[in-house]
Amino acid sequence: MAEALGSMARFTWDAQGVRIQWSDGRATEFASLWLRDNCPGDRDPGNGQRLVDIADVPATPRLRVVRIDDGALVVNWEGESREDRFALAWLDGQSRPRSERRPELAVRHWLDGAAIDARTFFAARTLAEIEHDGAARVDWLTRLAQDGLAFIHGVPARDRALLHAAALLGFVAETNYGLLFDVRSVAQPENLAYSDFGLGLHTDNPYRNPVPGFQALHVLVASPEGGDSLFADGFAIAEHLRATAPEAFDRLARTPVPFLYRSRDAELYSETPLIRLSATGAIEAVHYNNRSIAPLTLAGEELRTFYEAYRRFALLLREPRFQVRTRLGSGDLVVFDNQRTLHGRTAFSSARFPRHLQGCYLTRDSVLSRLAVLRRDLPQ
Amino acid sequence: MAEALGSMARFTWDAQGVRIQWSDGRATEFASLWLRDNCPGDRDPGNGQRLVDIADVPATPRLRVVRIDDGALVVNWEGESREDRFALAWLDGQSRPRSERRPELAVRHWLDGAAIDARTFFAARTLAEIEHDGAARVDWLTRLAQDGLAFIHGVPARDRALLHAAALLGFVAETNYGLLFDVRSVAQPENLAYSDFGLGLHTDNPYRNPVPGFQALHVLVASPEGGDSLFADGFAIAEHLRATAPEAFDRLARTPVPFLYRSRDAELYSETPLIRLSATGAIEAVHYNNRSIAPLTLAGEELRTFYEAYRRFALLLREPRFQVRTRLGSGDLVVFDNQRTLHGRTAFSSARFPRHLQGCYLTRDSVLSRLAVLRRDLPQ
Repeated sequence: MAEALGSMARFTWDAQGVRIQWSDGRATEFASLWLRDNCPGDRDPGNGQRLVDIADVPATPRLRVVRIDDGALVVNWEGESREDRFALAWLDGQSRPRSERRPELAVRHWLDGAAIDARTFFAARTLAEIEHDGAARVDWLTRLAQDGLAFIHGVPARDRALLHAAALLGFVAETNYGLLFDVRSVAQPENLAYSDFGLGLHTDNPYRNPVPGFQALHVLVASPEGGDSLFADGFAIAEHLRATAPEAFDRLARTPVPFLYRSRDAELYSETPLIRLSATGAIEAVHYNNRSIAPLTLAGEELRTFYEAYRRFALLLREPRFQVRTRLGSGDLVVFDNQRTLHGRTAFSSARFPRHLQGCYLTRDSVLSRLAVLRRDLPQ
Repeated sequence: MAEALGSMARFTWDAQGVRIQWSDGRATEFASLWLRDNCPGDRDPGNGQRLVDIADVPATPRLRVVRIDDGALVVNWEGESREDRFALAWLDGQSRPRSERRPELAVRHWLDGAAIDARTFFAARTLAEIEHDGAARVDWLTRLAQDGLAFIHGVPARDRALLHAAALLGFVAETNYGLLFDVRSVAQPENLAYSDFGLGLHTDNPYRNPVPGFQALHVLVASPEGGDSLFADGFAIAEHLRATAPEAFDRLARTPVPFLYRSRDAELYSETPLIRLSATGAIEAVHYNNRSIAPLTLAGEELRTFYEAYRRFALLLREPRFQVRTRLGSGDLVVFDNQRTLHGRTAFSSARFPRHLQGCYLTRDSVLSRLAVLRRDLPQ
């Protein structure tokens, strides 16, 4: 059975830090500087913001007395009269993986898309559940964050019903396409999405900065023939590339690619690698959109190796084994992480069957914030 | 005198590519694969989007015939019947630095802030000029992008007048603070910005993803005493750090820092380095906000060297020589790049003098798009 958070077996300390052995066997070192920078007494009691700048924190604070009192670690500092208290439960929490407190951070990759039945693999709830059942919404949002894809059914197939549903999830980001955009065939499409063309797997708007975080697509009129939806996990495919062709992976991660979108009322230009890594080498984003890659400024060997890697990635995206294929019906809403999950569609004939979706973008932070706030209200 | 774009002296070619010598002495290599990937005929004639995926482009296309015809390079390919035309002016444009076509990309650093008179150094226009004079707005937006800071005067000191001005510049991003937020002292501030406290140089909302691109602050009521505005160029200071303490710079660029903001209706968490580098090592963003740094998960030597670098950066930000100090009056609006320009204020006494600003965030892409679209309408 799990020990209660903050259950301590013993601790040792010297002037430079404290070492706590927890009852479950884990041990954590808390350096004196870390403790000093995180003193609860240096934070605003109301909003929790830190009141002290690092430049005003002693560079090498030394502990003078450390003791345990009423579930807290109490420390005094050399040459100072202040006393600071750290709740043991809080210290324990800090020493655990963040995904223990935030399960949405435990990303779940799905490489073998062809083996996935989208209707059962991903989170799917009715709009009524999302709207009225807090626990259902928390579960759905958590799985959206983990999987990068989730469905809501029963969203009325009416103009702008999408915006009502989206408001339950976060803030809609207004762009040159509007708060909401119509995905249906038009005569002179400003974007190829607004045509009968099939669209290969892609992410939206890499020419934009910021790139949209989440995308929501709501089916008003489904096409009975063609217009199937395709999805793939860009993170899983990128990791597959890293494992099988590390040089190609590095090339894509190290090459900024120019993306451009130009229309009557917008001109968007941004440079980003197709695979974006964090400062520690984790995959942070995947951006892939052959329609909007502008001419590269590379030459010689750099050009050759980039194109080789780019082609290799494109061929992986084409492999049916990596693709989830599903058919959305009227009233279905799909939400996906637009910096991870690629989407596409098969071609359709709007002359025979009209097809009409509405879409919008949601800011990433607002969706994750909504989840964290809703989670507070659940019984623990 | 500059030659006209596309003025060619001579060219040579083989199956792998074309080498053009321009009249002004420059020479450019166009690899056959680059040409093939950028064929104008493979783009939608209406919206300019590419119709072909890289997986469908030959991996090693070979040129069969290359000739010049009517200001265009005309190519045929081995084993294919197609012919493609590239305007020489377009090829020339592609071979020049992008900042020739987009002067807003030529970033101008300003390290020695104390020597700067903000009223003359940065772009400053009246709201009437911004609203009614296209050339003035283009100039102002270009300099905002180059310098990361610009002023508009004469914005009526009325509630929500900011949103009217902001709509001239781009799209406002809605956040948990609203479309617009009031910066004035309140009794229980959910953010320390809403107090009398002085605020050290910082960027806003590093706990948000995306971090706000541009920030606009409009003065409704200026304080005659205290509440001075401080600004510093985070890019210039970061480059100064790279030049004077490269190990500290690297440490900050390679360490993801957790940022957290928690209030009744929001919980925002994001990890980002204080100095964010592009895939090629250029400084892409600076994020600094001591109030919202959450406890680090580093330990040992990593913890020690991070804190050392962090403190060094904080001390640089404190140096008066790097700070522009200015006093904004009622009706003044300042806009700055929130991923580059740090801002702060001196303390003030709201009991003696009320002080009231309204602020909002603008998405980066919408501001730069507005600039590019307006520039099209200017006489060339």
